[in-house]
Amino acid sequence: MRISGLADASGVAVATIKFYLREGLLHPGAATSATRATYDGSHVRRLRLIRALTGPVGLSVQQARTILTLIDAPGDDLYATLGRAVGALPPSVLPAPAGDPDPYPRARAALQALGQVYDPRFPAVAQLETALASAEDAGLPISGERLLAYGRSLRELAEYDVERMPPEPRAAVEYTVLGTALYEPVILALRRLAHQDVAAARLDLGG
Amino acid sequence: MRISGLADASGVAVATIKFYLREGLLHPGAATSATRATYDGSHVRRLRLIRALTGPVGLSVQQARTILTLIDAPGDDLYATLGRAVGALPPSVLPAPAGDPDPYPRARAALQALGQVYDPRFPAVAQLETALASAEDAGLPISGERLLAYGRSLRELAEYDVERMPPEPRAAVEYTVLGTALYEPVILALRRLAHQDVAAARLDLGG
Repeated sequence: MRISGLADASGVAVATIKFYLREGLLHPGAATSATRATYDGSHVRRLRLIRALTGPVGLSVQQARTILTLIDAPGDDLYATLGRAVGALPPSVLPAPAGDPDPYPRARAALQALGQVYDPRFPAVAQLETALASAEDAGLPISGERLLAYGRSLRELAEYDVERMPPEPRAAVEYTVLGTALYEPVILALRRLAHQDVAAARLDLGG
Repeated sequence: MRISGLADASGVAVATIKFYLREGLLHPGAATSATRATYDGSHVRRLRLIRALTGPVGLSVQQARTILTLIDAPGDDLYATLGRAVGALPPSVLPAPAGDPDPYPRARAALQALGQVYDPRFPAVAQLETALASAEDAGLPISGERLLAYGRSLRELAEYDVERMPPEPRAAVEYTVLGTALYEPVILALRRLAHQDVAAARLDLGG
């Protein structure tokens, strides 16, 4: 298809497609003359991915490029690449103060209680520290018992996710990035709705 | 204590405390003269609540007022009050288009599959619809199987939360609001860290 057909198929405006081509986010079409090219399903899929990253996931074009580069060239160490790709997603976290021997004490204690690896280089560790500190400041700290209950439920959920990760590295990075970012709002909405459902039963309503 | 002592105890500046007093978010102290008043632990706790709502929860003063009013006067229908209070939290959702007989078809189908009540007036229903549509647009729709797996894990988590809701209505609204908003970032961080832990085991690392 020509660029106008690609615009129709993807729902992305021609000017935006040209911008992504210039920026190298979208691979060139097959040249049919000095000024024309044809595009195929791979371009439609790539545009859908770029749209997801810059739309609902909320990345800037520069941040999307970081993730697309990791998808395009996942390298040999898939685990490290998955970590870098998820680490490039919002929320952005500040680096730990240099020289602080224990920058994330709450997250460290929580992960030790859950029997999980504690690696302060993971951005999600800083994210957990901030979240635990906010709950504490508000007078509603996460108790050890609650941590174990949440940890158990979320581990089941994470096992489901990881078991379904495609084996091919590029597909694995894309699945991990989109499944992390796009399913988070689903999870939060489902939790709120489960609260309502459980509360209705306990408060003897809806019967 | 005097207002300067309240500022020290709460970490909130005197000018900000005066603003909250003028706006009616903070209850007045006991007057000791025409221009002086004393404050107690109830003021420190209230300031901590206001700080959580306007800080990590991310509400404007006006939105915080809506929630504080529900905490102060939860009324007789606690279930409806809890729904309104959680509905006032971010993310804000657009009202359904007037006259649309089925504004949230994805959320409706999902809740029916989970055996939960579907009420399109709950803001979390619109939130779920948007999240499901974004995943679909990105080519990674939530399958029926995934929905049931997520629903099961999140229901366990929600049961834990609701079982620990304090019986006193004002405390119940405060617990529900803060537990919803402040624990959501904890849950997302724990999910990301569980992914890493499960993936490390599956990719035969860290052994």
